[in-house]
Amino acid sequence: MDDIKLIEVKEEILSDNDAAAAVLREKMHADKTFLINLMASPGAGKTSLLLQTAAALKDDYRIGVIEADIDSMVDAEKIQAAGVDSVQLRTGGFCHLDADMVKQGLDGLGAENYELVFIENVGNLVCPAEFDTGAIKDVMILSVPEGDDKPLKYPLMFTKCDVLIINKTDMLSLSDFNMEKLRGHIARLNPGMQIFEVSSRTGAGIEGWTNWLRDQLNGFL
Amino acid sequence: MDDIKLIEVKEEILSDNDAAAAVLREKMHADKTFLINLMASPGAGKTSLLLQTAAALKDDYRIGVIEADIDSMVDAEKIQAAGVDSVQLRTGGFCHLDADMVKQGLDGLGAENYELVFIENVGNLVCPAEFDTGAIKDVMILSVPEGDDKPLKYPLMFTKCDVLIINKTDMLSLSDFNMEKLRGHIARLNPGMQIFEVSSRTGAGIEGWTNWLRDQLNGFL
Repeated sequence: MDDIKLIEVKEEILSDNDAAAAVLREKMHADKTFLINLMASPGAGKTSLLLQTAAALKDDYRIGVIEADIDSMVDAEKIQAAGVDSVQLRTGGFCHLDADMVKQGLDGLGAENYELVFIENVGNLVCPAEFDTGAIKDVMILSVPEGDDKPLKYPLMFTKCDVLIINKTDMLSLSDFNMEKLRGHIARLNPGMQIFEVSSRTGAGIEGWTNWLRDQLNGFL
Repeated sequence: MDDIKLIEVKEEILSDNDAAAAVLREKMHADKTFLINLMASPGAGKTSLLLQTAAALKDDYRIGVIEADIDSMVDAEKIQAAGVDSVQLRTGGFCHLDADMVKQGLDGLGAENYELVFIENVGNLVCPAEFDTGAIKDVMILSVPEGDDKPLKYPLMFTKCDVLIINKTDMLSLSDFNMEKLRGHIARLNPGMQIFEVSSRTGAGIEGWTNWLRDQLNGFL
């Protein structure tokens, strides 16, 4: 296994994160790098979903991953072990990534060599929603054990994202999670949101998500 | 059901949150109000644990709850419906509570009339760990579906807290969560941490936690 590149990110107080993100997004279009910002609570299944997604797509696309963590490399190690290139951003205490930190990750990865790059953001439903990272698409995971009321409590995250992946559907039988209720909240907050129900553990539903990704990539590349 | 008091908290840029927290904690000792700061990821089961805890203790102690949410009152409504007094702090975009916000909640509740007051902090394993709220004890919940590696990824939270409640043990059979591994991480990070394994859903293990709380209250009041 290759050594994983570790980048200790510095927080630059950028006067205008939105402008930096717009520049980055333009570069992603020019380089034909489809950059996805993946966000979720701690333990919702970001790494597992990335592993399933990479397994489905890695024969057809060059995939890279930027892992963000406050203080460990466990996720980057799992991704690397699956044969997917990754860099680790260590964020110190920061609760989110901004466009400049993502740029440090893209540079470290050599993102221009990849067609599909995922940012695994810090596990947090609050702060990451407030910062444009320059990604082409924002994707969030909500896992069934977290409950169907989360859109009411973290509305910005559910409003900002283009895609909602409902993970751990294999746990529905042990939970009072009501899928109709959840879909009702989304219909009011963000009616254009794409929703996929999956279980990263069993693989159920993953194909719906990866087929959508293939369509996006076909339009983009 | 009484109307729930809603407090829109203002963030004062306090030069020294630690000093404000120390003043608040001294007042809690003087008033004999055992203030607990409860923290966890979104959906780990803070409100459910509070409901179980209140059911076990409300005949013996006067209990109040300060709910913090970015933008909803669903938790305060659940708590109030169970016959427990609560106030709702609406934090706008803030990802954590500081001592001044907690003071606004305590004043709104009339905390001097209660022996046991819980703060249900914003669902987040990052930011709340960085701010002393003035509580007597810091308690966190980790739920089984989040995984046993979380101490590696959010070490400050696991180091800061006095008590770890491992919730949703009824989901162990559907998860690769390894309790020994988790306990090993804690032994290295925070060997004095009290650990309770519970299921708020089935009630299993709740008594260990509430008995510990009774002991603490007996020593404090």
